[in-house]
Amino acid sequence: MSDASGPRKQINSFDVARLAGVSRSAVSRTFTDGASVSKETRDKVMEAARRLGYRVNVLARSLHKQKSDLVGVVAADLDNPFRAEQIDLLTQGLLELGFRPILLRGEPSADVADLIGSLLQYSVAGVIVTSDTPPEEICQECLQNGVPLVVVNKRDPGAPVDRVVTDFEAGGRMALEHLLDCGCTRLAVVTPERSSYSINGRALAFEQAANAKGVSVIRIAWGTQSYEGGLAAAGFVHRVRSEIDGIFCTADYLALGVLDGLRHVHGLKVPRDIQVIGYDDIPQASWKAYDLTTVAQSRRDLCEATLDLLIQRLEEPETPPQIRTCGVTLVQRGTTLGS
Amino acid sequence: MSDASGPRKQINSFDVARLAGVSRSAVSRTFTDGASVSKETRDKVMEAARRLGYRVNVLARSLHKQKSDLVGVVAADLDNPFRAEQIDLLTQGLLELGFRPILLRGEPSADVADLIGSLLQYSVAGVIVTSDTPPEEICQECLQNGVPLVVVNKRDPGAPVDRVVTDFEAGGRMALEHLLDCGCTRLAVVTPERSSYSINGRALAFEQAANAKGVSVIRIAWGTQSYEGGLAAAGFVHRVRSEIDGIFCTADYLALGVLDGLRHVHGLKVPRDIQVIGYDDIPQASWKAYDLTTVAQSRRDLCEATLDLLIQRLEEPETPPQIRTCGVTLVQRGTTLGS
Repeated sequence: MSDASGPRKQINSFDVARLAGVSRSAVSRTFTDGASVSKETRDKVMEAARRLGYRVNVLARSLHKQKSDLVGVVAADLDNPFRAEQIDLLTQGLLELGFRPILLRGEPSADVADLIGSLLQYSVAGVIVTSDTPPEEICQECLQNGVPLVVVNKRDPGAPVDRVVTDFEAGGRMALEHLLDCGCTRLAVVTPERSSYSINGRALAFEQAANAKGVSVIRIAWGTQSYEGGLAAAGFVHRVRSEIDGIFCTADYLALGVLDGLRHVHGLKVPRDIQVIGYDDIPQASWKAYDLTTVAQSRRDLCEATLDLLIQRLEEPETPPQIRTCGVTLVQRGTTLGS
Repeated sequence: MSDASGPRKQINSFDVARLAGVSRSAVSRTFTDGASVSKETRDKVMEAARRLGYRVNVLARSLHKQKSDLVGVVAADLDNPFRAEQIDLLTQGLLELGFRPILLRGEPSADVADLIGSLLQYSVAGVIVTSDTPPEEICQECLQNGVPLVVVNKRDPGAPVDRVVTDFEAGGRMALEHLLDCGCTRLAVVTPERSSYSINGRALAFEQAANAKGVSVIRIAWGTQSYEGGLAAAGFVHRVRSEIDGIFCTADYLALGVLDGLRHVHGLKVPRDIQVIGYDDIPQASWKAYDLTTVAQSRRDLCEATLDLLIQRLEEPETPPQIRTCGVTLVQRGTTLGS
């Protein structure tokens, strides 16, 4: 959560909380006359404050008092293991920083006016958007109301907000190069029928890297972004079986369905008959029944970058909008043949 | 969400919202002078109100205005698929009823005073507790502050609050009877090292039903309530292999690890060498790599009963505390031999 580059920033309550190993609200209570705080906590806070040379920023406190400790987290699809883990980490991280997360659901069907209304009604200290909708309206309203906003793994909303993205171009290329290294020559990429920004970006990066090497790719856009979607896509893969010896599944959640369909419905051997690589490294990818080779994006890195941007924006509201890019790594397991 | 027994209750805004197919907040806006609502929505609401004989309860409205639309949902372990789906359904259901869910984390490590403080500070309209901690203190504070509280699948907190439980005694018996029907004679039950109230209840019910039939049961209490915990427990099962031909895993999340350990680490055939039954029916239980026989508790039933109790309590605060028991069903799949 530290940023070695850039000018030395002022010590703030988050730094003290981190060093003292207490919540930010405990730091706040320690420096509030009459607030309840245990002697042990107070001692830890005072020692950390002394070591860091922290003093209460009266301006920041009065600004802070206009806002609640609530941070809105806009999310959807908690049944998706990637999303569930992301929300788990974000809410945990917010609590450790002394905020209270409010979870707001951002389904395509959600009432945008209601969502924005609740964010502003409760004077949230900030907003984190992890779902696809509704980016533009939320961004504009938050900006106009001075509410910090961090957008995670979503397209540029056309407004000057902080964004965290993973390097899906590197990820798509990595998947392509690994399948070629493993001897694949007839490639397919599996996406849901309606791709989100980042899913589509992964597929495009894979296709472009393949085209640059003169390798053609069949795109299979099928069903929903879920296990069931992958299972259905496996049926199509099986029908055009002779055309394909390597598959890039643009999300692990899809890949697990593809694997089960190929193995348990269509009787194919993976990786002998066909090789499969996923993307995300959700927990189930490492489960022994799947043992899925995948492009890993670290939820922990995404979460830290997100909270880091939010805190910087709260403490230095005039900082120009930033984009943090989180890297990806190849996790080689049993669904590809290795090099 | 209906309750055929008991006296006819007064028609309220939730009934109108349900019949009209709109959010509760849309009903509220329709009956608020100057509030924004589309003609289409207003027409639906007025028609539903007319059919139900609904009239705005002025007392309820003024009471309601003292509270926010926030409902605190205390949860932990979102990486557990059962939990993620439960929170997904509860937050979705709350939004449909016109509430805003705040997710609060109730880990054993959580600062109880902080949790309660945030619930009361934001004048929540109600609280739903799905995690194990911290029940007693939250219950007492909520009661003293007149905040409705529903406790899901947890032990009696010793305070007069509404509770939803699943019938884990019936579930434990069902698992036992199915394994006996499938020809098992040497049984084990797998739990995490530290069992929650409902996990321990399932194991006890299984053991008691076995004892009543003169069948002995080995209890394997191992690791955490997770895939990894199950994988580790499989190692122990393998070592005492000759003693066991049927296993009841007290949660599917554990069962998936047990299955992978037995099959992919220790080379056993399930169900031929050993039969396995789980509990919960999480989505992964039906995935083809697992095809797990299990005792299903419906997340949808749990969610509906929870929201139903919350609404009743809000609208009729003097109702005596209720317990709703949700049933369980056997889902027979490929990890047992059937009868």
